[in-house]
Formats: sequence, structure tokens, C-alpha cells
Amino acid sequence: MALLERITGPRDLRDLTNDQLVTLAQEIRASLIANVSRTGGHLGPNLGAVELTIALHRVFDSPRDPLIFDTGHQSYVHKMLTGRQHRFDTLRKPGGLSGYPSRAESEHDWVESSHASSALSWAEGMAKGFALKGEPRTVVAIVGDGSLTGGMTWEALNNIAVEPDLRLVIVVNDNGRSYNPTIGGLATRLHGLGQQLSAIRTDRRYERALARIKRWVNRTPVVGEPAYDLMHGFKAGVKDVLAPQGMYSDLGIKYLGPIDGHDLKSLELAFEQAKQFDGGPVIVHAITQKGRGFAAAEQHEEDRFHAVGPIDQVTGEPLTTSSARTWTQAFGDELARIGATDDRVVAITAAMLHPTGLTRFAKHFPERTFDVGIAEQHAVASAAGLARAGLHPVVAIYATFLNRAFDQLLMDVALHGEGVTFVLDRAGITGPDGASHHGMWDLALLGLVPGLRLAVPRDEQRLQEALQACVRIDDGPSAIRFSKDPLPAALRPVRHEDGLDVLVEHGDPRVLVVGWGQFATMAVEVGNRLAQQGIGVRVVDPVWALPTPKALIAQAGAHDLVLTIEDGGLAGGLGSRLAQECRLAGVRADVREFGIPQRFIDHGTRAGILDDLCLTAQQLARLATETVLAGDPEPAPDQADQRG
Amino acid sequence: MALLERITGPRDLRDLTNDQLVTLAQEIRASLIANVSRTGGHLGPNLGAVELTIALHRVFDSPRDPLIFDTGHQSYVHKMLTGRQHRFDTLRKPGGLSGYPSRAESEHDWVESSHASSALSWAEGMAKGFALKGEPRTVVAIVGDGSLTGGMTWEALNNIAVEPDLRLVIVVNDNGRSYNPTIGGLATRLHGLGQQLSAIRTDRRYERALARIKRWVNRTPVVGEPAYDLMHGFKAGVKDVLAPQGMYSDLGIKYLGPIDGHDLKSLELAFEQAKQFDGGPVIVHAITQKGRGFAAAEQHEEDRFHAVGPIDQVTGEPLTTSSARTWTQAFGDELARIGATDDRVVAITAAMLHPTGLTRFAKHFPERTFDVGIAEQHAVASAAGLARAGLHPVVAIYATFLNRAFDQLLMDVALHGEGVTFVLDRAGITGPDGASHHGMWDLALLGLVPGLRLAVPRDEQRLQEALQACVRIDDGPSAIRFSKDPLPAALRPVRHEDGLDVLVEHGDPRVLVVGWGQFATMAVEVGNRLAQQGIGVRVVDPVWALPTPKALIAQAGAHDLVLTIEDGGLAGGLGSRLAQECRLAGVRADVREFGIPQRFIDHGTRAGILDDLCLTAQQLARLATETVLAGDPEPAPDQADQRG
Repeated sequence: MALLERITGPRDLRDLTNDQLVTLAQEIRASLIANVSRTGGHLGPNLGAVELTIALHRVFDSPRDPLIFDTGHQSYVHKMLTGRQHRFDTLRKPGGLSGYPSRAESEHDWVESSHASSALSWAEGMAKGFALKGEPRTVVAIVGDGSLTGGMTWEALNNIAVEPDLRLVIVVNDNGRSYNPTIGGLATRLHGLGQQLSAIRTDRRYERALARIKRWVNRTPVVGEPAYDLMHGFKAGVKDVLAPQGMYSDLGIKYLGPIDGHDLKSLELAFEQAKQFDGGPVIVHAITQKGRGFAAAEQHEEDRFHAVGPIDQVTGEPLTTSSARTWTQAFGDELARIGATDDRVVAITAAMLHPTGLTRFAKHFPERTFDVGIAEQHAVASAAGLARAGLHPVVAIYATFLNRAFDQLLMDVALHGEGVTFVLDRAGITGPDGASHHGMWDLALLGLVPGLRLAVPRDEQRLQEALQACVRIDDGPSAIRFSKDPLPAALRPVRHEDGLDVLVEHGDPRVLVVGWGQFATMAVEVGNRLAQQGIGVRVVDPVWALPTPKALIAQAGAHDLVLTIEDGGLAGGLGSRLAQECRLAGVRADVREFGIPQRFIDHGTRAGILDDLCLTAQQLARLATETVLAGDPEPAPDQADQRG
Repeated sequence: MALLERITGPRDLRDLTNDQLVTLAQEIRASLIANVSRTGGHLGPNLGAVELTIALHRVFDSPRDPLIFDTGHQSYVHKMLTGRQHRFDTLRKPGGLSGYPSRAESEHDWVESSHASSALSWAEGMAKGFALKGEPRTVVAIVGDGSLTGGMTWEALNNIAVEPDLRLVIVVNDNGRSYNPTIGGLATRLHGLGQQLSAIRTDRRYERALARIKRWVNRTPVVGEPAYDLMHGFKAGVKDVLAPQGMYSDLGIKYLGPIDGHDLKSLELAFEQAKQFDGGPVIVHAITQKGRGFAAAEQHEEDRFHAVGPIDQVTGEPLTTSSARTWTQAFGDELARIGATDDRVVAITAAMLHPTGLTRFAKHFPERTFDVGIAEQHAVASAAGLARAGLHPVVAIYATFLNRAFDQLLMDVALHGEGVTFVLDRAGITGPDGASHHGMWDLALLGLVPGLRLAVPRDEQRLQEALQACVRIDDGPSAIRFSKDPLPAALRPVRHEDGLDVLVEHGDPRVLVVGWGQFATMAVEVGNRLAQQGIGVRVVDPVWALPTPKALIAQAGAHDLVLTIEDGGLAGGLGSRLAQECRLAGVRADVREFGIPQRFIDHGTRAGILDDLCLTAQQLARLATETVLAGDPEPAPDQADQRG
């Protein structure tokens, strides 16, 4: 690591020789594999972006020229080249390096983008802003081919196309597979191109064109109008076999490529060209290989190690093969079982087939499985259409990405009363992916949707029952949410009461504890601790969280104190909603809600974050005991202030 | 109206002669002008879609073949041809015809789409669904060129392109101007085409190609592979001057056009062709003229009478020139004033420059005004980029369309702490546009966003002050909301107290009335009525609604009863939030919130709907009086059940 260690910033790259750069790329790959195999993280995408990132930093002047990564998990190499290579062993650990760009870490990180497809909009806005302020910066957006399937990208390109003077370079990092082989017309075309490029790298025409542009660049360092012509010439020269015909040129955006994304020289030439246009957006299309340089990844067709936990550095095998069954697996198995008997059930995912547990369903029912790409808006409105045609779609997405389709859930599904089931994975605090990936917004959003029925299962049996019930709800939206945690042990009710499951009952109940879904186990522990203190307590699982069950409202009114525990943001969450429903029904209830304070929560371990937020059975039981025994105590600091 | 009167459904169109169809089109235009000039509504778009809609109903078999309009306000002619022409004088009136498709009105209305850009996703989903079920239907989506700027359209096209067997016809109704001349690369190209087409309608090549396809269709009624070739030939024959080169063909979707959208024969031929492909999506590109056949509209360059209130049938002049100053005007004037002294302020709109009051700012500062097209996601993320570059963007949109950009507000603006101001017009109950246009979701959404500061001004002076304050907030999102109502009279405070404006104070206050923003005037009236009953009351305007002011929490705890009145959905709204903040702060307060029940509210007049919802000073004062004097009464029916 002799070279990598000495890089203090992008400027140190300028003086390296070709051979040194090749060595540096090797060192970066070795470091990525060594570190990410220990910490877990996005290995494949970064292995594919090594030369690309080196070339960007040699040609552009970061941080003066902002580099914006879409999505941010392809920024590891950028972090290594901007003085953070020595902290890579702390990646995604509490207090360590973020797995995404972070303005707190470095002036080289302008945008912490991690929901996909937003970089072009950011870049367009920044480029316009710098132009208005007269600052001669070039904004560079690095976009994966998968992100191009998102509608935001289209909205941005459509605007970029009418800004002929923007100093904006769009680098398409095209590995032909975003999370797995990308879906969609555009992506198919780009992917096809990539395959063609592999076959054609030794093609004479390509070499000739490349040689021509190289000669020209060596001869003419200052670039004006002729460069644009040559660029067109270059494109025209190879377009029969290579160019995505008209794809970008139709929008009127200059296009340069495709470039071999692992050939430093070609990359630098292209970036120099793009930069020297000096006004007017340019697309540079680089073909890269995800997982490049890691044999295990190159051979792993499925996702080339897109995101991994700790793995063996050589074989790529997971080091901790947790045998614990997850909510995701339980959902996937049950959906496949339901699919076998109910052929109205279809599954939809937004580029997350495997992570959301749809693999098994897709294997058995490929004709009823739709991966729409990173396109949550379309996923949901298209589901409404499928429902209108008489099917029952199950939309499986991460809870945090529901934000992207709130309008479609509301206007296309709920307003039309279509039977669509949403299965929200990674709900609640997630952990190492940080603020943008905590699923803490969905409960409040779902609560705004008229007629929506939400089940929050507490164990596998309840998950199965919830899914069976949801696919029979054909007159409006239904939803299920669960965490990335392993499944808890089954929690049997002591009895059923008006649709509620009573999980603990001790003495003459003064305290009602409501634990929704994945927090039901914690609620039971809180209840047991209160019972040990001799406090009369009842713990219930409402089974259905929305609409607030009338029986829960009645129960709330029948107790002196109601503690609610939810794995979601407090503002407008389930506890807040219970309190509101009590008021609207004229039921007096003393509700104290516990959940995630309404602020952006940094990355860490799930357990560590929950502990920090006082969301543990021990802390909640202590708060509850104090409240009951000693009147109104000060609430825990983090539970007192929602906004942080 | 001899012909139009006799049309009981689309099948009656089949037997009409060419001359009769021309007469029918004239009758439809006359009826549109006569009725919409009285009722108000979307006149221009429907005048442009007369022949298009007739041809669709002659070729396709509605309702078996669903016609899906994007957006729904271009469906008036469709309504007239499906048995609703006699009710057109009730358009958009309470209990009358909806201004959008309505499943309650007709089996010919499949989708009530009214937020733009969703039709292609619906159509894709429905076509996939019918295919899975083995139902041989053709789904037809009618999309305005403006809707194409929305990212959902891109997401849908990208998916449609990889479904080679879908029975799906996409009709692009291209009038080169969605709300006003459309912005963006694609739109510019299409618009350019439209202009070319106007110039070239008599061009020999166009005539020759048309003649060729006519001859062929007459000769070969059953269409197979050759048709596709011919279509390509047709396109190739005119593409030098006409075709949007590669725009759609790059996606691999068959393309047919451009067609003269007022030439019934050409339209029918194109639709027949598209239908007979019998598998595989086809785009039919029709060039139409917005406002066609209404001289006043044709001459009105700005928006060709996109949406109108009651107007003179001949001159197009508004019949009720209300001189009442609106919130929108007040905002527009103040923004222009601020813009003159603060050149960091830039304005962004999503195809709503005039309706959101930005006209004046745009006139004075065109280089600082950005209309991004119907593209709310991009509008907001691009604003974050502008802010990052050191400017202060003001994003002016309708409250209901904020739904489309919630993720960007949260992740791109708030998470990054960018100073972006949102100005939400048409907040609260709007009226004749119905469920999709009431601005009843924004308060709850804004309440979820960490760090967001929301001002809800009660009169013009407060609006000016709020805007001046918001453009100085550079470390996170700020927002202002107001209704489409005229501005109320200025409401001077009797005094200021800890940042709150006390508007009424009577006796020893037992009741606190909180009236946010546009409901402050109503709150004052409620307070005065309570005072007349001898009830001690204080009415306050918190000035800032979010975060909940600490002074308001203290005030709430100091009164026996707190009535809150908001023009937004009750679930997670401002009253709910005040109650929650009181609980979290350990302040006991008896909050009773009044607002819009959390269900979809039909169209009607704003005053009529508010009255139905018990949101009038008289009804609220009565409820409050009963509560204070007689303990807890039953709440008003509509205020008791949020879900309806």
C-alpha cells in the first residue's frame, strides 16, 4: 500500500506515472477487499469504479469541481483518494466512516445522496447556481446505469437539455447491472452495448477512433468548437456497432462514449474533452465491470457482491453464516405458498428482488413477478393498474423508499380503492446505512392514507396470517411492515379480546402497554418488568395497527396509563394516532408514546442506536415504573425532544 | 345539437357519415364553449381533443378497451360521447359531473387520474393484468405532451419497452403547450415538430405518405407483419422533416405519426393500425391545437384557456372579474419585491408559473426563474442543488403536488440542511377540482420533516413577513401555505406574547382557540361568539406552525380546553401535533382538534364543503360552547370520524 498511503488528496494523483497509477488501482482494490470484507458494505460497485474515480480526480479539481455520486455507495474510492484511506477499517461502524458521502467527513463530499436517481437534479441545480453566481466550476455527476431507470433522472435530463451553457459533466458508470441485471428498455440497450463493447474492444474501428482522438488531444490542448465536431466524428465513427443511437443526442445533450471504464487513459481523455467543452452539458458513458478484480465477485453472476456483510477475502463466502431466520425469508416463503393457490397474486419490486425476499416467488411464478427497476412511482401506479385488471399485486420495497411513491399510494391506489398490498422491509431503525435508510417515515405516511389497513406482525405466524389477510383485501391498500432483524420467537397470546391479542396480564391492570409488531417482544419484557415491580399491567398486540382498532381505543380509556412502543418516527406515528383517535372518540386516555425521535439518525448498529434512543425494555420499564410510582418524571432526554 | 343529443354511447358513432362526424365535432365544440363558459373548467385542452376522442371511440371498444386520460381534465369530450352530454351544465358543481373521469359516473371511466403523468403506469399495469388473465382487451392511454415531462412517464416507458406483447396504445396528444409552452428537451422537440407540421400539412411528401397508407389500409384490412414494415416505411418517408428522430424508437416502442390531430380520417387510420398490431405497445403521436374552434382561445397565446372560471362565450373575458386580492397575488408581489433587493432568491415552478403567482418575478428576473415542467421531484432536488451553490430557491407549487416530492423535501433538502422555501398554494379545501386537488396532506407531511419551519400567515402583512423571514432561513427547509380564497381583512393582534399573536382576549380565559393561517379569521369569530356567551376565551395565532412553538405548548397547558382549527387533514395535522408536543413535554392539555376528516372529499364549492365538514365559525362555536358548558358532547358527525 505504499502509494495509497501517501495520497493526501486528489492533487497527489497528478504527478503519478502511468505505472504508478496502475499500481495505485491495485492497491485500492486490495484495500477495498481487505476492509469491506471485514466491515461489510458495497463492495462490487466500488471495485468497478476504481479507474473511473482516479481519472475523475486527475482531471477535475475537487472540491472546487463538485463530484456528486448517485447513489453514494459508489464513493468508497473517492473517500480513499480524499484523505480517508486510513480510516477504512471503521467503515459503517458506529462513529466510523459513513457508507455514503458525508459532508461532516470531507469538503470533497458535496451531496450525501443515497436514495437513487437524485444526483442529476442536484448537479443541475448546483451548475445553474454557480453559473448565476459567476463561479467557473464544473459539476460532475456520476450515475450508475440502474439509477437511470428512476423518473427523477428523466426529469433532470429533460431540463438539462434546455440549458446549453451548463458546466455539467454526467458520467454514466454503466456496469449493465445495477443491483442485478437492470430492467427496462434503456437499461437493456445500455447493457447490450456493454456486451458489444467487451466483444469489440479489439475492433479496428474502435481503435482507430480512439487513436484519432488521442492524436488530436495531444496536438490541441485548448479546445473550442472543433472538439465538438470531432466528438461527433468519434461517435459517428463507431456508432454502427457501439453508440446508443440517439438516446441522448435526441435530448440535445452532447454524448461521449462508450469508454472502457477500466482504461485510465481513455477515461482521462474523455473527461478532459468533456471538461474542455467549457459550457454545455456532456454525457460520458463508461462501461465498467462490477466486482472487477475480485475473482469471487466476477464469478458471482447474481449481483457481483453489490452489498455484503463480512466475507472471506478470497472465497467471498459470508463469514458469519447466521442461521437465524429473518422476516424477509418468512415473507418470501409465505408469498410463494400463497402464490401457488391464488393465481391473482402478483409480485412487484423496484430493483430489489432478492433483498425483499421475492426470489422464491419469482422462481416459481416468473410470469407473475415484475421488477420495474429503480422506479417506485411506477411500481405503485402500475400495481394499481394490475389490481384494476383483477389481480392482487404485492409491492415489496424497503420502508424508506415508500417516500418516493406516497402520492401514488394515496392517489392511484387508495383514491381508486384498488387492492394492493405493500410489504415494507427494513422498517424502523436499520443501522449501518445511516439516516437515509432508517425506515422511520412509513408509519406516519401510511396513517394519512384513507382506508389503508396496516398489519404489523410480531412473529412468523402473525406475518403469515397478515399476508393471507392482506391479499384478500381487494377494496383498498393494505400493508405489512417488519424489520431487518432476525425473527423473534413466537409470542402466543394469553387470550384474544375483541381482535386484540393480550400477551401479558398481571394483577388489576393500571398500565396498558402497546407494542406494535417487531417491538411486541420488547413490550412483553416491559410488561414483565412492571409486573415484577408489583404494578398491574396488560400488554396487547393490536394485530392491525391502522385503522386504529376501536377495541384498542376502548382499552386505552380503561387504563390509567398507556405506554406505546413503535419502531418508527414519533411525529404522527401510531402512538400519536392512538391518542388522536381517543380524543376524536371522546375517550380520555393518558397516552405516552415511545419511538424514534423525529430527527435524522446517524449510522450505527441497530441495537446500539435503539439503546441510545432509550428504546430498550430496561429503559422503558424504568420510565414506566417511575411514571406510575412517582407521578410524572422527566422523560428520557431522547424521548423528550423529537426534533433533536 | 341534433346529433350530439342522440349519442347514447360510443357505438352510436360507428354509423355516422364523414359529414355527420364533422357536424358532431362542431356540436361538441359549441356545447363545450356554452357549458364550460358558464361552469368554468378546462376549456382549452378539451377543444383540442374533439376529433381525437371521436376517433378513439370509433376505433376502440370502450369500456371493454379502457381509455385512460392523463390528466383527466381532457376527458370532457369522452364524457359527452358516453351518455353524459345532457348533464354538462352541472360540470364541477356540487352533486354534478366531476371535472375528471369518475367511476361513479360511468363504466367508461376506468381511472380518475388527475395528478399528471400517471396514465402510462396505469395502462401498463392494466395491459399486463389483462394479458395474464387472457382477456383480449386493448388499453389506450391518452397523454398530453406536458405530462411527458413527469418522471413517472419515463419509468413507465422504460418498462413498457421490455414488454413486446402488451396490447397497449399510447396516444400522445401534443399541443406543444401543456399549461403554457412546455419546458424541457423532449417537449421542445415535440413542440418544434408541431410547428413543422403546421407548416407542412400541404407538403407533398406528407400527402404522398398518407395516401400510401390509406391505399394500403383499404386493401389489407387484416394486418400482420407487413403493417409493421409499412409503418416503418411511413415513418421513414417523412422522418426527415417530421419524426422525432429516435425518441421512441430508441426505446424499442413502435411509433406512428405525427398525425394531424384534427383530421378524423388520419386519426382513425392511425388508431386502426395501432390496434391491429395486436400485441406490442404502439405510440400514436397526434398534433392538436389547444383551444381549437374558440377564437378567443386560439388568440390567447399564454395558455389558450387551459382552465377558466365563468367567461363570456364570445370574447372569453371573465364574467365575474373579482377585484378581491388573492393570497397568490400577494405572494407574487412580495417575492418580486424581495427579488429586487436579494439576488440570491430564485424561483422554481413545476409548469405552474402563472397559477402560483410567479409571473411578476419571472418578468423582472427571468434568469432567476426556472420552470422545470411537470416534474416536482426534480424541482425540489434541483432546488437543493441551487441552495448548495449559495442561492435561496423558492419553490412555488400547489399543496397537493407536494406529495410528489416528499422524499426530495426530506432527503435532499432537510437531510442536507439546505435553505429552500416552499410556497404551497391551494392549501386546504379547494373546491370544484375534487378529491385529488384538495390540499389536505401537506401539513402532516411537513410535520414529519426534521428542522422544517412552517409559517401559516393569516393576512397579507403576515404573508409578507413570513416570506421575508423564510428567504433568510438558509440552514434547512422553510414553508408557507395559503388557500385559493381571496385574502381576508388584516387581523391586528391585541398584543404579542412570546412570539404568539393574541387576536382575542375575553375575561378570564378558560378556552384557548388556535386558528392556523387562513382559519385565523374563523378562530376570531369563534372566540367572539364564545365571548358573547360569557365564556372566557383567548384566540391566538402562533405565526409559526412548525416546529410547534414552546409558547403555544405552555398556553395550551394553561387553559381548560384548547380548540384548534386547521385547513388540513386531521391525521397527523397541526392539532394532533400540538397535543403530541404537549404530551412529550409533560404538559397536560385538553386539545380538541378540528380540521378535514381523513377521507377523500368530493368536489363542491369551498364554502359548501367547509360547511358540510362543520368547519364554520357558527358550528365550531356551538360545539365549543356545548363542550364548555355541558361537559363532553358528541362531536359533530364529520369531525368525529376521520375516516368517513
